[in-house]
Amino acid sequence: MKKVLLASTALLLTAGFASAQSIELSGDANAGLKYDEDGDLVPGGDELTVHNEINMTIAGSGSTDTGLTFGAFLTIDETDGLDDAEVFVSGVFGTVTVGRIDHATDSLGIADIGFDGIGLDDHAEQYKNATAGGPDILYSYSAAGLTFSASAEIEGDESYAVAVEYAAQGFSGGIGYITDNNESAEVAIGSNETITIVAGYAQGPLSINGMYSDWNGGTAPSGQGYGVDVSYDVAGATITAAYSNAQDVSAGAGLGDSYGIGFAVPLGGGLTVAGGIGAIQRDVGPGATASADSRTVADLGLTMSF
Amino acid sequence: MKKVLLASTALLLTAGFASAQSIELSGDANAGLKYDEDGDLVPGGDELTVHNEINMTIAGSGSTDTGLTFGAFLTIDETDGLDDAEVFVSGVFGTVTVGRIDHATDSLGIADIGFDGIGLDDHAEQYKNATAGGPDILYSYSAAGLTFSASAEIEGDESYAVAVEYAAQGFSGGIGYITDNNESAEVAIGSNETITIVAGYAQGPLSINGMYSDWNGGTAPSGQGYGVDVSYDVAGATITAAYSNAQDVSAGAGLGDSYGIGFAVPLGGGLTVAGGIGAIQRDVGPGATASADSRTVADLGLTMSF
Amino acid sequence: MKKVLLASTALLLTAGFASAQSIELSGDANAGLKYDEDGDLVPGGDELTVHNEINMTIAGSGSTDTGLTFGAFLTIDETDGLDDAEVFVSGVFGTVTVGRIDHATDSLGIADIGFDGIGLDDHAEQYKNATAGGPDILYSYSAAGLTFSASAEIEGDESYAVAVEYAAQGFSGGIGYITDNNESAEVAIGSNETITIVAGYAQGPLSINGMYSDWNGGTAPSGQGYGVDVSYDVAGATITAAYSNAQDVSAGAGLGDSYGIGFAVPLGGGLTVAGGIGAIQRDVGPGATASADSRTVADLGLTMSF
Repeated sequence: MKKVLLASTALLLTAGFASAQSIELSGDANAGLKYDEDGDLVPGGDELTVHNEINMTIAGSGSTDTGLTFGAFLTIDETDGLDDAEVFVSGVFGTVTVGRIDHATDSLGIADIGFDGIGLDDHAEQYKNATAGGPDILYSYSAAGLTFSASAEIEGDESYAVAVEYAAQGFSGGIGYITDNNESAEVAIGSNETITIVAGYAQGPLSINGMYSDWNGGTAPSGQGYGVDVSYDVAGATITAAYSNAQDVSAGAGLGDSYGIGFAVPLGGGLTVAGGIGAIQRDVGPGATASADSRTVADLGLTMSF
Repeated sequence: MKKVLLASTALLLTAGFASAQSIELSGDANAGLKYDEDGDLVPGGDELTVHNEINMTIAGSGSTDTGLTFGAFLTIDETDGLDDAEVFVSGVFGTVTVGRIDHATDSLGIADIGFDGIGLDDHAEQYKNATAGGPDILYSYSAAGLTFSASAEIEGDESYAVAVEYAAQGFSGGIGYITDNNESAEVAIGSNETITIVAGYAQGPLSINGMYSDWNGGTAPSGQGYGVDVSYDVAGATITAAYSNAQDVSAGAGLGDSYGIGFAVPLGGGLTVAGGIGAIQRDVGPGATASADSRTVADLGLTMSF
Repeated sequence: MKKVLLASTALLLTAGFASAQSIELSGDANAGLKYDEDGDLVPGGDELTVHNEINMTIAGSGSTDTGLTFGAFLTIDETDGLDDAEVFVSGVFGTVTVGRIDHATDSLGIADIGFDGIGLDDHAEQYKNATAGGPDILYSYSAAGLTFSASAEIEGDESYAVAVEYAAQGFSGGIGYITDNNESAEVAIGSNETITIVAGYAQGPLSINGMYSDWNGGTAPSGQGYGVDVSYDVAGATITAAYSNAQDVSAGAGLGDSYGIGFAVPLGGGLTVAGGIGAIQRDVGPGATASADSRTVADLGLTMSF
């Protein structure tokens, strides 16, 4: 016997409480095929693989008589584990979040392409969070199109990040800075600070977004990543093209050019068919510069939201 | 403060949408005692153990304007892990499922006995899926009592399975075939293909089902499993007897006879008390034939569905 | 698209079934800062840490035509794991529970202090469950303010526990006994039996509770723990003070005095701000008596229930 949860009608029935609580389910999933020209170079690997992801979220929230809102959620995924777990409290002072959170600079980026993502944004975005660890606490405040965020990793590496984002009349822009004390060894990234800038503009069916990220490792090596995505809505579908590049020293995602094009067609009810194809320049060994060769990556599949 | 989910009344309130989404909870559990005459031969093991299982499922589903239905679910169990995770899409073409799915031949089998199952069907069913790995994708199509299924393990062993099942007027039957390329070593099972046949008939309170499974390991050894179950409904209870046998070479579940009898009494509201007792012939060491001895197995407990 | 679960209104809609089923979500979370003066003695540790916990429960339950009630629940936490998993059945005979249950003696204790707990009750409570393993089955029966509980670990150590608790007219009291056969080696605790007594009284805004626990390890060492908590409600807040002590031999939680004071202020809607500060006497090495020094522990944060 299945029990169906109610949608918006439930809100009507529970309205009128001064302080209120609710607990909600939501979820998303995808399924499709992924292609990577280098996939069979891994022992036991294949160029073509069947991919699927499922995320189901249980979210509790409430509000106090004095106007504070608060909540917590867990997101379970298909890999025997938790995908996310956060606790927040919001008021006139803004929102404070703890748990498995991201740095304040994490929202600065460009679009990937495909139903699951073929990694075209990785070259450009590899420097923006600078540190390998995650923060312990995130603060954000939004007003009049402006969002200010700050995050801190109090334990361990003691990293700090701030970001300011603005969106109005089709224009969007943001700037972020992150640094850490690097008390422990960070093999992949080294002592570091990164400044990242994003800007975008949307007019009618067209939207364009770009980013530039400059990583400075002090005595350690440094790197620069940049990228752009362009989307166009036509006949109910969205066509997106993306380009990104990383140079100097890789922070793990490789160096050189990435570019590709993809589409997404919503079929209604939360189902979308999407796919993409691209080329990612190969990185020639540790510390080396990008090679002239690139590998082809592609995917095609369905995304669902519940 | 607990929140109760609505049952069927919710369907009435959400009816009338052209495209629709829902997210549902369902679950089942069991609890009881299990007895295995050989249970204390394992270090730290006991003949009598307390057993319980809990499975809770979060399932999202939706439908598009054009008549496609789709969904995904996660099933969490009591062992700190996921019991199941699948994504599907259905249309006039049939249903395609990916995730933690079973081979097309997996549905061909006989009944086990007891509240949790004492393993009377294991001897007969050990050959039907032939390969140790699971498939990547499953396709099924049903019409007029006929169900066609095909599954493929695209990565790794490249196994393929097909099954056709038919049910009408009390009669049911099915045939399935599975094979794999055995590119990697399969210690327990070896290079293989299996053909499985099932047939059943139900008339009034009586139902009977049988299966035969023939495993052919090519240059490797082969085995045959067969079994039958008979159920009779009397005074609100169901009495079930089962017999199964495996000969030649074991695929991991042992050789020889298994037989037993059990009951299930629904108490209403989703609660059922059930139990069973049986004898399973002992397998005398690796590669050897079944011995004359058998071990007694039994269970008694409750099953619940929510 | 989010779906909101209904609260009590759902019960009205589903009332009228002779046998009924439901499946419910509930949850709680906390977030805040924790301080431990000795926290930085651990490699990579800090005195001040950001702490958060999230628990979401999926609970199914039902009732039969004959008046049995039954159910099962899973509690998922923020650490990639299950926090709890139990199955129960209740009737005029009482309640039987299996799964990840606690000993019958586990409910005998005193209050801890703080939003998450700073461990002031650990010294007093370390002996009450005597054995390191958990039970396989728990039985309880309540009538007229009296609750009788018995638990058994049938497999492994074969521990048995009983407890009787009484509550009426502001007075509460309880006594519990636990023993095990110690068939396997129990390094931390040794062969053992424990008797525990609790008593409490509440009058208007004031409540007081105390416990005494006497662990007898036979040929092995023994220990005694005792403690008391006092709570006072004032202007919507609750102030709680706690003291506990352990002497003779530690069962893992240390020896000596623990004392502290804390507060909890409900803000409405399930949100509470709480904190506490205390001193826990240091234990001078394995087998040694408690030192004159104590370490300061404190916490401050929010708790939420959904």
